[in-house]
Amino acid sequence: MKRTIISAAIVMLSGLALAQTPAADEPIQPIQRAVNIDLGMVELGKKLYFDPRLSKSGFISCNSCHNLSMGGTDNIPSSIGDQWQQGPINAPTVLNSSLNLAQFWDGRAGDLKAQAGGPIANPGEMAFTHTLAIGVLESIPAYVREFKLVFGKDKIDIEQVTAAIAEFEKTLVTPNSRFDQWLLGKHDALTKTELEGYALFKDSGCVACHNGAAVGGNSFQKMGLVEPYKSSVAAEGRSAVTGQDADRFNFKVPTLRNVELTYPYFHDGAANTLTEAVDTMGRLQLGKKFTKEENAKIVAFLKTLTGDQPNLILPILPPSSDSTPRPTPFAK
Amino acid sequence: MKRTIISAAIVMLSGLALAQTPAADEPIQPIQRAVNIDLGMVELGKKLYFDPRLSKSGFISCNSCHNLSMGGTDNIPSSIGDQWQQGPINAPTVLNSSLNLAQFWDGRAGDLKAQAGGPIANPGEMAFTHTLAIGVLESIPAYVREFKLVFGKDKIDIEQVTAAIAEFEKTLVTPNSRFDQWLLGKHDALTKTELEGYALFKDSGCVACHNGAAVGGNSFQKMGLVEPYKSSVAAEGRSAVTGQDADRFNFKVPTLRNVELTYPYFHDGAANTLTEAVDTMGRLQLGKKFTKEENAKIVAFLKTLTGDQPNLILPILPPSSDSTPRPTPFAK
Repeated sequence: MKRTIISAAIVMLSGLALAQTPAADEPIQPIQRAVNIDLGMVELGKKLYFDPRLSKSGFISCNSCHNLSMGGTDNIPSSIGDQWQQGPINAPTVLNSSLNLAQFWDGRAGDLKAQAGGPIANPGEMAFTHTLAIGVLESIPAYVREFKLVFGKDKIDIEQVTAAIAEFEKTLVTPNSRFDQWLLGKHDALTKTELEGYALFKDSGCVACHNGAAVGGNSFQKMGLVEPYKSSVAAEGRSAVTGQDADRFNFKVPTLRNVELTYPYFHDGAANTLTEAVDTMGRLQLGKKFTKEENAKIVAFLKTLTGDQPNLILPILPPSSDSTPRPTPFAK
Repeated sequence: MKRTIISAAIVMLSGLALAQTPAADEPIQPIQRAVNIDLGMVELGKKLYFDPRLSKSGFISCNSCHNLSMGGTDNIPSSIGDQWQQGPINAPTVLNSSLNLAQFWDGRAGDLKAQAGGPIANPGEMAFTHTLAIGVLESIPAYVREFKLVFGKDKIDIEQVTAAIAEFEKTLVTPNSRFDQWLLGKHDALTKTELEGYALFKDSGCVACHNGAAVGGNSFQKMGLVEPYKSSVAAEGRSAVTGQDADRFNFKVPTLRNVELTYPYFHDGAANTLTEAVDTMGRLQLGKKFTKEENAKIVAFLKTLTGDQPNLILPILPPSSDSTPRPTPFAK
């Protein structure tokens, strides 16, 4: 009996050793669960994330375009804003966005907190102002109490709002994909085809930009490196932030985590399928024409990057009070 | 010890007797939890309820206008449809809608299943067609498998879609409001003011229409009985269904369950607050001008009708496949 226990312990220890070795050797690391989380802020941030009263219309919330039922995106090429305005760029996924080196395709926000205030006040998105949004929140007694509980202050301000939303977003990581299980030592987590796809992904050079825990998100790179990318949208990426001509068409490399769920692809959402995206990337970024078989293997690998999706209780929002300013969805 | 158990049993029994007596004597009955539920259909229906791919734009789902975070409504006077079209009438709450004698303000759908197909194909709402919606669902392998599991058929059809959504909606009842606790024998569940409000609600005649488990929803009544109701919307209610002139301005009496959450009020959403709604109803339906104090008491009673809100895990929707027709949010 004692021997059995010791053997089991040795097996477990060697399993642990195995579990840690592959990740260390590979250019992609497993997604870690969120740490140092303030649960009070998370619960408040979740409500705010789902609350359309942060928009002029009372209809658009963060979750409208970064829909947590759909890979943290809206699955359309460009988002729908106030009055059905067409957005200028594809909505990036909110999943694992805490791992990005900066937020937005051009990295103009340094972190999630800086990002969260943007869409609320963007006339083409939620079309509100921070002042009006705070006015709404301060008129809702249950929000006033919850902000006070979480932040210990008598007044709500936009810094608290964006901090709470960012804290909630930090929890939106997707560990435990089959690929991560493989990285952590579960050798049969991937099929032969998927492993061949991963080998191609590395050997062809995709991994030069798509690496790290998020398989991307950690650098800006030129879209159209070998061949220019022809886009129907005007966005020129990083140069809008730096003012440098050299940064034209430099975009943040998107994460490939959950990429099966985050179609359509690229900053303009022009590629509807992974097959098309892999083909375009090969040609434009690597000067490489993947065969149909190679493409299918890479796609098979990419689909192993889908992790555990957020397991959320839908928040119940506190009701407006008699003094809450009402949304104006149809006023121009 | 034995005596204690017997005494406890007697207390429980008498508690039970008490629990059943008030409800039987009152014109309002407690909300019952859902029974005879097919959980496979419910889970499928929940996904469909949250899936914007049932709309032309890929942006609007059932939950957009019947938002389960917000009392099963959108909290705006009239809903936003495809291309930001303004809806003709206020979106009624989906909560406890299984208790309604018919669906829609004019009762044109006999039950939830008949209702569920309406918005999908309404050009002013989701602006899709049943055929196109089925085409989308049939292109998504995980949906194909789930429909087959639930309905045992090889083909998906609109009858299955609406049956699943209706089954999910049957679960959206809100028992356990403070008022129901009182009905069931918890004598201290209501304050003196709330009880006085309930007495006024009964004695003034509100209860003539707002009765039963849903506190409404079980008859059609004329809006503007004593004084005509002046509305900015064109809807004339039940006459659109019956063709009878006598039915003009007859609308389904809305449920008052969760009425604190389902603002704005009336078929045109013209009343922003409960105070205003109670005042208007008193004058137009009962020929009665409530004092400020009476009005406040009735409002206090109405707020005790908020029950347990749906406690839902946000569904994760199965991804589209390469062959799924893509939404066309910006195509006219």
